[in-house]
Amino acid sequence: MKENAFEALTVETLPGRLGPVAAIAERIGADSNLWKVREVGDGNLNLVFIVEGEKGTVIVKQALPYVRLVGDSWPLPLKRSFFEYHALSRQAERAPGTVPAIHHFDEAQALIVMEFLSPHIILRRALIEGRRLPKIARDLGLFMAHTLFRGSDLSMKASERKADLALFADNVELCDITESLVFTDPYFEAPMNRHTPGLEALVKELRADRDLKVEAQRMKHQFATRAETLVHGDLHSGSVMVTDTETRVIDPEFAFYGPMAFDVGMLLANYWMSFFSQRGHESAGSREEMRAYLLGVIDETWNTFRNEFARLWHTERKGMLYDAALYEARNDGLASEQALNHVIHDIWTDMLGFAGVEMHRRILGLAHNADFEDIADEAQRASCEAAALKFGRHIIVNRNKIQSLAELDMLAQALDQGKLS
Amino acid sequence: MKENAFEALTVETLPGRLGPVAAIAERIGADSNLWKVREVGDGNLNLVFIVEGEKGTVIVKQALPYVRLVGDSWPLPLKRSFFEYHALSRQAERAPGTVPAIHHFDEAQALIVMEFLSPHIILRRALIEGRRLPKIARDLGLFMAHTLFRGSDLSMKASERKADLALFADNVELCDITESLVFTDPYFEAPMNRHTPGLEALVKELRADRDLKVEAQRMKHQFATRAETLVHGDLHSGSVMVTDTETRVIDPEFAFYGPMAFDVGMLLANYWMSFFSQRGHESAGSREEMRAYLLGVIDETWNTFRNEFARLWHTERKGMLYDAALYEARNDGLASEQALNHVIHDIWTDMLGFAGVEMHRRILGLAHNADFEDIADEAQRASCEAAALKFGRHIIVNRNKIQSLAELDMLAQALDQGKLS
Repeated sequence: MKENAFEALTVETLPGRLGPVAAIAERIGADSNLWKVREVGDGNLNLVFIVEGEKGTVIVKQALPYVRLVGDSWPLPLKRSFFEYHALSRQAERAPGTVPAIHHFDEAQALIVMEFLSPHIILRRALIEGRRLPKIARDLGLFMAHTLFRGSDLSMKASERKADLALFADNVELCDITESLVFTDPYFEAPMNRHTPGLEALVKELRADRDLKVEAQRMKHQFATRAETLVHGDLHSGSVMVTDTETRVIDPEFAFYGPMAFDVGMLLANYWMSFFSQRGHESAGSREEMRAYLLGVIDETWNTFRNEFARLWHTERKGMLYDAALYEARNDGLASEQALNHVIHDIWTDMLGFAGVEMHRRILGLAHNADFEDIADEAQRASCEAAALKFGRHIIVNRNKIQSLAELDMLAQALDQGKLS
Repeated sequence: MKENAFEALTVETLPGRLGPVAAIAERIGADSNLWKVREVGDGNLNLVFIVEGEKGTVIVKQALPYVRLVGDSWPLPLKRSFFEYHALSRQAERAPGTVPAIHHFDEAQALIVMEFLSPHIILRRALIEGRRLPKIARDLGLFMAHTLFRGSDLSMKASERKADLALFADNVELCDITESLVFTDPYFEAPMNRHTPGLEALVKELRADRDLKVEAQRMKHQFATRAETLVHGDLHSGSVMVTDTETRVIDPEFAFYGPMAFDVGMLLANYWMSFFSQRGHESAGSREEMRAYLLGVIDETWNTFRNEFARLWHTERKGMLYDAALYEARNDGLASEQALNHVIHDIWTDMLGFAGVEMHRRILGLAHNADFEDIADEAQRASCEAAALKFGRHIIVNRNKIQSLAELDMLAQALDQGKLS
């Protein structure tokens, strides 16, 4: 066995194995006998430890060579930790303060030691509890604008972007999960699919819906081939940690060079699902304000993203695309504005397609959302999910014709209130 | 100096240096003292030797570390030979018999020894001479369908395509040439541009044309980010060698994973330029039949490409896109057909954009076409080029509205006859 061969950590072995790492010792105290270690990984893929020393606390995240949820029958390469580390580094550079600080990375052990976020909780959990976070829309709108713009040919040197594209092109297995589980499986009777009883008729209808099936595959085509920028790749409300004043984005192991609109679509989809799930959580009190809050978050997130993207377009466009020499050098501000509007419009349209697909796969596929899953009453859950499925279908198929968030707000409300079938 | 350090070949040194290569000796004879060597490179980038031995003849193509046309002030990496070798290998696999056979590749010396094609001549030269090649439309339509379909996620295993994408992503400098010289420089007063006297007013108009400048950059955006398939990257009539019965595609050093429509657009653009140049060659006799022939070639090329692409869609779609499980498993042939039509329509639309840009850069940029350059009468040349420039502008800006080749034939004829301004 190689000296540095991968070995999964346990609560017992962690202090002995990470004790010698200076970067950790400095941060939480050198005497690893005093470290308190808890395993808290509740995700599907990894081990996560909270390690508390005399001087402080860190998170240790270690990949496992298989999907934790399923076991070693579903292998998954350790190198996803490498991609997570590189994505976190780039996000920290492009959107400072939005991701956990990294203290240490060990490629062979597939582990990242990073900042312990406290008292942050997972955004999805907060939304299920009916908490209205005041800063998420602005923070995540800015996060997306900064990372997506600055990771693209609008900003990067072409040679650097292409080298980075090649590096992340090796993240094949995690892209494959998205390609299969998100874009394909929900639309036919794939073995790992499941859905809430009561949805049978609607599921049958959707899986026979030619327009929908064609458009979902066109979105997959975009996902697989549009190497526009470094996307987070899994930016749902379970990948965000929040307090009332802070927002941090975690878990970018699905990162790769993909379409500008993918992260935006996935995030907004998760807000829309939270919206449609609120009726299921009303036993703890009316969720009217929560619903209005969520539609407001969607509006503000998009508008923040769009406005910040436009600001960067005007102030930081130093890449090879829409070259300033073509426009500003001739004082041709109008051409630059016209080009910007095309770019934003394309992101908007594609965002709707990705959002609809994300809503479908969370209800029809393998990995469901707690927003719906936590609704104990099956009939109620099916009713919430049905509205979300119809909303998703509408925005995928009609994405080229939808012009405003006001229209989407009305659609969401009408479906939620059972006024549209 | 390293033993195998790069050294440019000369007519004198070639036999001594390549004599020991068994693959060459086998093919043309082992006694290199008897080899006859001629340097025939007329391109902009490389050395090309014809090496004739007792038993046969081969071509030796060697890259130089700079642009041959300009000199060592414009360095260009030797690794382009590596990409050419890998592209030729893949093309030979995907479209057997369409590219020269490779006998030997030396990466450090950046040289490829390949099949000597005789009596083939360069297609561009044949078209300038007014020769009507009976097979090019069918052969190149099939070449494009086979290489573009089989290099994409419609056919390849996703992991293989992504590994290949990463390999070719390192072809940065040659992509940069296209990105700068094709998509950007023609649309402003870049230092290396030149154009025929008499075009000043039209050039000024085009460079002030906002719609055109925005659309050309959108095509650049597509070129740089749509990693759909392994494209040849430089598929003009100077990269094709022909006889009346054979068609071979050469010089794929610009190969990379790019948009499906790029090769198609560049090739058809070069036919349209040939069409518009015919008036300039009429001193040697009427070119009426040649013009009709060229429009016919364009029609037949597109139709061959489209029909063969559709045939492969129905018979070879084994990649992850438009997964047969979604369609055929349910006997839902209509959904598959609908998806195919979307894919073809997108290629058509993008092809028009790329074709228009190619026409502009060959008249306004650095690298001009012999089709026009060989017209000695400047006023005549300017008149031919003006029609081509207007045609290019129209198909770029209106590409989403153009539905048929019949419409383009009429447009080309009207512009050629001065019936449209």
